[in-house]
Amino acid sequence: MHLSPSPRAAALRDQVRRFIRERVAPVEDALLHRQRQLPDPWVVLPEVTALKAAARAEGLWNLFLPSESGLTVVDYAHIAEEMGHSALAPELFNCNAPDTGNMEVLEKYGDEHQRRTWLHPLLEGQIRSAFCMTEPAVASSDAGNIRAQITDDGDDLVLNGTKWWSTGVGHPDCRLLIFMGLHQPEAHRHARHSMVLVPRDTPGVEVKRLLSVFGDQDPPYGHGEVSFRDVRVPRANLIAGPGRGFEIAQGRLGPGRIHHCMRCIGAAERALALLCARAGARVAFGKPLVNLGGNRDIIADARIRIEMARLLTLKAAHLIDTEGVFSAMAEISAIKVVAPSLACEIIDQAMQVHGGAGLSEDTPLAAMYAQARVLRLADGPDEVHRGLIARIELARQAEAAAERAAAVPR
Amino acid sequence: MHLSPSPRAAALRDQVRRFIRERVAPVEDALLHRQRQLPDPWVVLPEVTALKAAARAEGLWNLFLPSESGLTVVDYAHIAEEMGHSALAPELFNCNAPDTGNMEVLEKYGDEHQRRTWLHPLLEGQIRSAFCMTEPAVASSDAGNIRAQITDDGDDLVLNGTKWWSTGVGHPDCRLLIFMGLHQPEAHRHARHSMVLVPRDTPGVEVKRLLSVFGDQDPPYGHGEVSFRDVRVPRANLIAGPGRGFEIAQGRLGPGRIHHCMRCIGAAERALALLCARAGARVAFGKPLVNLGGNRDIIADARIRIEMARLLTLKAAHLIDTEGVFSAMAEISAIKVVAPSLACEIIDQAMQVHGGAGLSEDTPLAAMYAQARVLRLADGPDEVHRGLIARIELARQAEAAAERAAAVPR
Amino acid sequence: MHLSPSPRAAALRDQVRRFIRERVAPVEDALLHRQRQLPDPWVVLPEVTALKAAARAEGLWNLFLPSESGLTVVDYAHIAEEMGHSALAPELFNCNAPDTGNMEVLEKYGDEHQRRTWLHPLLEGQIRSAFCMTEPAVASSDAGNIRAQITDDGDDLVLNGTKWWSTGVGHPDCRLLIFMGLHQPEAHRHARHSMVLVPRDTPGVEVKRLLSVFGDQDPPYGHGEVSFRDVRVPRANLIAGPGRGFEIAQGRLGPGRIHHCMRCIGAAERALALLCARAGARVAFGKPLVNLGGNRDIIADARIRIEMARLLTLKAAHLIDTEGVFSAMAEISAIKVVAPSLACEIIDQAMQVHGGAGLSEDTPLAAMYAQARVLRLADGPDEVHRGLIARIELARQAEAAAERAAAVPR
Amino acid sequence: MHLSPSPRAAALRDQVRRFIRERVAPVEDALLHRQRQLPDPWVVLPEVTALKAAARAEGLWNLFLPSESGLTVVDYAHIAEEMGHSALAPELFNCNAPDTGNMEVLEKYGDEHQRRTWLHPLLEGQIRSAFCMTEPAVASSDAGNIRAQITDDGDDLVLNGTKWWSTGVGHPDCRLLIFMGLHQPEAHRHARHSMVLVPRDTPGVEVKRLLSVFGDQDPPYGHGEVSFRDVRVPRANLIAGPGRGFEIAQGRLGPGRIHHCMRCIGAAERALALLCARAGARVAFGKPLVNLGGNRDIIADARIRIEMARLLTLKAAHLIDTEGVFSAMAEISAIKVVAPSLACEIIDQAMQVHGGAGLSEDTPLAAMYAQARVLRLADGPDEVHRGLIARIELARQAEAAAERAAAVPR
Repeated sequence: MHLSPSPRAAALRDQVRRFIRERVAPVEDALLHRQRQLPDPWVVLPEVTALKAAARAEGLWNLFLPSESGLTVVDYAHIAEEMGHSALAPELFNCNAPDTGNMEVLEKYGDEHQRRTWLHPLLEGQIRSAFCMTEPAVASSDAGNIRAQITDDGDDLVLNGTKWWSTGVGHPDCRLLIFMGLHQPEAHRHARHSMVLVPRDTPGVEVKRLLSVFGDQDPPYGHGEVSFRDVRVPRANLIAGPGRGFEIAQGRLGPGRIHHCMRCIGAAERALALLCARAGARVAFGKPLVNLGGNRDIIADARIRIEMARLLTLKAAHLIDTEGVFSAMAEISAIKVVAPSLACEIIDQAMQVHGGAGLSEDTPLAAMYAQARVLRLADGPDEVHRGLIARIELARQAEAAAERAAAVPR
Repeated sequence: MHLSPSPRAAALRDQVRRFIRERVAPVEDALLHRQRQLPDPWVVLPEVTALKAAARAEGLWNLFLPSESGLTVVDYAHIAEEMGHSALAPELFNCNAPDTGNMEVLEKYGDEHQRRTWLHPLLEGQIRSAFCMTEPAVASSDAGNIRAQITDDGDDLVLNGTKWWSTGVGHPDCRLLIFMGLHQPEAHRHARHSMVLVPRDTPGVEVKRLLSVFGDQDPPYGHGEVSFRDVRVPRANLIAGPGRGFEIAQGRLGPGRIHHCMRCIGAAERALALLCARAGARVAFGKPLVNLGGNRDIIADARIRIEMARLLTLKAAHLIDTEGVFSAMAEISAIKVVAPSLACEIIDQAMQVHGGAGLSEDTPLAAMYAQARVLRLADGPDEVHRGLIARIELARQAEAAAERAAAVPR
Repeated sequence: MHLSPSPRAAALRDQVRRFIRERVAPVEDALLHRQRQLPDPWVVLPEVTALKAAARAEGLWNLFLPSESGLTVVDYAHIAEEMGHSALAPELFNCNAPDTGNMEVLEKYGDEHQRRTWLHPLLEGQIRSAFCMTEPAVASSDAGNIRAQITDDGDDLVLNGTKWWSTGVGHPDCRLLIFMGLHQPEAHRHARHSMVLVPRDTPGVEVKRLLSVFGDQDPPYGHGEVSFRDVRVPRANLIAGPGRGFEIAQGRLGPGRIHHCMRCIGAAERALALLCARAGARVAFGKPLVNLGGNRDIIADARIRIEMARLLTLKAAHLIDTEGVFSAMAEISAIKVVAPSLACEIIDQAMQVHGGAGLSEDTPLAAMYAQARVLRLADGPDEVHRGLIARIELARQAEAAAERAAAVPR
Repeated sequence: MHLSPSPRAAALRDQVRRFIRERVAPVEDALLHRQRQLPDPWVVLPEVTALKAAARAEGLWNLFLPSESGLTVVDYAHIAEEMGHSALAPELFNCNAPDTGNMEVLEKYGDEHQRRTWLHPLLEGQIRSAFCMTEPAVASSDAGNIRAQITDDGDDLVLNGTKWWSTGVGHPDCRLLIFMGLHQPEAHRHARHSMVLVPRDTPGVEVKRLLSVFGDQDPPYGHGEVSFRDVRVPRANLIAGPGRGFEIAQGRLGPGRIHHCMRCIGAAERALALLCARAGARVAFGKPLVNLGGNRDIIADARIRIEMARLLTLKAAHLIDTEGVFSAMAEISAIKVVAPSLACEIIDQAMQVHGGAGLSEDTPLAAMYAQARVLRLADGPDEVHRGLIARIELARQAEAAAERAAAVPR
């Protein structure tokens, strides 16, 4: 179990770190602030466009995709952690969700036409995309509940239903929606749903509103509520084939969860750095905060927990690399339970050490918190992942018990 | 130790509950939403004005102030819990912080002129006020750090410094600021600061910006950063006398913390009700959420913890009623540690059960979370309160040990 | 909701405190140590007999039983807390479980003959008793699982089965066992079991062994595994009537749980006192432990949690006094979840502050831990109580939601 | 960072697992029970001697010592985890603390005579040893507090003082004590203490008593209180040189802590297996416990936490292998904080699922708990380790902040 990055990946990681440190960090807070002050914040700032170009020029582009970057999941995990230190970074390096997962889907399941039409411009960073799975009317943590409809009509597919938490749908460059719907309701539970490529401007597609998280809509990305009313696309837009939606959804989430979790770990590191800096500099009752109360215990526990979460995520990445996503299910679920919660808790502790400033726009902590908090729900809530881990564990334990029983000589 | 409300207080509590249930709850979410959509949200909606008038007409007005309402702190605590079920309620019943604390200060420490000028219109709900103590440059959890200056200049006082987290300063009716500053720097640590009444429109007072909490500025109240530059007020605006700022700050916070904590408990109750409703109605994997995972344990623990926090808050209120604020210091600190955290945790669990909806504007949970989270810092962060409790405990234990030692016959 | 003791109860509480402080505390550790060193530790030490006589002479006797003491459950709760400061105290004041619960059963459900035969000598402290309900073969947390048999045979009852965790059965004065068994297997789930009085020396009763808790058998009380083989007793030994076992078991546990929980709170107070004393006196790295790491936070949190647990227990006691055991079910379950866990945690923290000494026989902490840990299982494990609280909560919430819905005018 | 065992180590691990499963597990509970029932339990049972011989015959002997086994610390860590599944295993494979640490000291710091006299018979398993550092009179978590005296007297050293928690001193084969004392009180804080080899039968050495943990003395090993009164040994018994005690103590603890922590992880795995088996088999309220309440969450969290603790321990082992003990200080402290606590918590949860049986001698859980609980204090309490981690973290953060500041172009 080798968890370090390859030498090339380590060099890329260092390059990403330097890029963020030298070019992004000095301007990020001001850019984000300006975005939110704009009368219409659903635009891409020219500075962001320039930084993207600079990142691409340095070769820091599409690193998430093995076929493009030549990196393993473990390799990229180390790089993803670095991106977690910045809110802008994933976009700058064209490594932003949900585009990353959508590109993976297109690469793995798309046919040549689909790849040429959509994958290519996504890889170029010319367009952006959204993933339309979650529905307001049902507990979408159980994918079996998904009830938006896909109806066959000659050479067309007709889509109907309402989706929400379609991340990225507010972006001015969003051109593609991947839609998951109920297609073959009589089939086996895992073969009922299909995925369909829907151009953003297809008639009948309407973004009803952009949802807020703790009051913020996260422009220019946004989480949309999207209505599909008699949306008609050619049957050729079906991904992989009818009834394969569930399979694609599962496979899509493996590496993506590694990315999310490593970014959470990067965010936790960033919060811990902010916490330590503040606790060292701020004085109350004649002492720096770091010498008051249980603050050193908080720092020690944060360090310990970050280390453990990182190792577990790397182990899950290693399993994906060596045994595939489906063998790594328990570990992937485990990090989804661990990393976002960890990030939330350390960010919250950093807030507390910062006093009022920690809750305000004067630090990045509140925005970081919102982002990490969303991840306790997105891609499956903690509860579903715990249930899955327990199920796998109980099966393994039963097997081991049988083995142990067989081992005892009579 | 009698913790129940008097019959009259119980009747008022029921009346407040009905008012909120029948008149506020049905419109609250829509009003709050509309407020935030306004081009200038720093206004009072006419519906709010109408509800205030209705509340006052029913006699549900200034209940927090014993001299006005004839209620004990225990009595009002029960009523404050009801107000915690609604974001609008404190305003509607003229029981909103920081006006409540400011009115208490004026009543207890103000001279007749001060009371007539400011207390009367506050009690009438004609004006609003802010409390300017916390400063961005220092750890204000240690009041001894406060360094904004009050300089004597003949019959005037001249104020300089920057304050922030001055809650309510964004309100269009805010007319009065209570300013705490360093006045006698050479005096004993607890006699250096004074408090001064500052009309909002005094030259040199400038609201630099309104701070956000998790991205929201909480209009029309707001938390302001306020600059005081050579602000000149007559010496008659000094409250109680020079050097008494620390004493006033301490005394001010006793009942106010009871109010905050009881509202937190009301908010926790509201969150638990939302959680139970959602967990009973939403179905995943063929079962209502309430029958999945550890959700019943979460419900049971929430119920237990709410009960305990309420009883402790009522005990602290009872101590204030019977022995005074200074005898109730440990208990008041204890509830400040317990109630806001409890509210945060239960609200967070309710969010989780609601899935994405819980983070969005579709439920009141995100706004409730922000409000409860602020209270883990406002009026003293948890850490300072824990330190105080430990100090009192160690002193009590040392005393008890001495007593026990003396009790053993030789 | 009046939670203070009556003046008379307060005086008795103070008297109990003094008795423990002056007469028990100075000798307790040595007595307990000597007991365990005896070749046969299943005896009553003469010093214990003398202390019992002294306690009785002072009128500190049977205080737990309202009909004897004239105390309410709230009154006695305050006294029970004092008894929690000592391992010997409950025995000395004839307030020891399971005798207390057994006496309550006899008083409430026993007929005159039963009371004369067994209640009288128990009240005199001449004999002791055990309660035989839990069975090794089934999850006895679900009383419906109890499967030891009671068979009618003419004027006799014949008992068969194996019980364990029959506390007190190792005591040399144990003369009475209360046996719960399946009597009417075809009846309604809650009417199948009966309770029967069994003299300890009835043929067929055999104490197979005494169970240890963390390696200690707790002489001279002990938790026994007891086999009943064709044990024949007259039908007159049936308590209350056939099929009433479940009802008696429920009713028996109300006040008993208050007693247990208040003793846990007393134990937690004792542990906190030991913790504070040690942390103040012991020096590492040049500072008393109390000034190192998070120890002050531990002390503050312990104080807060003890206060809350005590108030909740007193509220439950108050409900029993005013509305009866069955109305107080949720609250009684709540304190069973809270108080033993709280005691375990504070005792564990006190151990940690004591270093190795805390785990050894040099402090009472290890024995206190074992006793509190047992209570997380005895009288219903935490999990069952949480389940009950959640069930009641969900029912209440459903009712409140209906009420709220009805309240909104259309 | 390669965390897997070498192929040879993996084979040895499997062999150890099989040995425990097939030869130890079937008899262990009975042997341990018999030991404690013996009139004099301070003996080695013949079955244990036979199992030792069998283990040695299989080559499963002294695997902990790299120079003997050819294994890295990472390699042995995997094997140590297996030994954590059994209370007897460490002894059987001659890998028992404190002999392991003592052998490491002799190998690394001992001169040839010392190694021949003591290391050889220890490696042969002919004798056993104890480590006498902790003192009852001072907080020994701060090694600077150690005050037992070493006085030079010509060619002799004279030792005086009282030690306790000298593990293994009760064993009938214990022949050697390693004594740490204050030798050069005027030297620098870290150069005051020396370590001395003391034959167990030297006049003046007296084992005053064997301490219990939760009431159990852990025969035949035991934790002794040992008095040294004018104990005279030749100066040649000094290890490494005067004033090097602190250095030796630090170096001694690195690999030892890996061993302890991996055994904790093995114990946690064992507890989880017992928990799952019981929760699957036991039925209450008509369902197996595994389908009740939050039990599946407990199982999932246990699995997650075990995985993370194992990875962190392996990383610390890897750092020792590649960079040495002193570079791995923070990581070694981290696992000492994590692994024993984790084991305690999972064992405690397994107890709870077992009901009363879990606390009794009918499962190994109570003994496992005691052993894990000791490790939250032995080799440095959690608090000291947290303090160390925080200190290292703050230094690293300060360094990184300086680096980041330098990186920003002006």
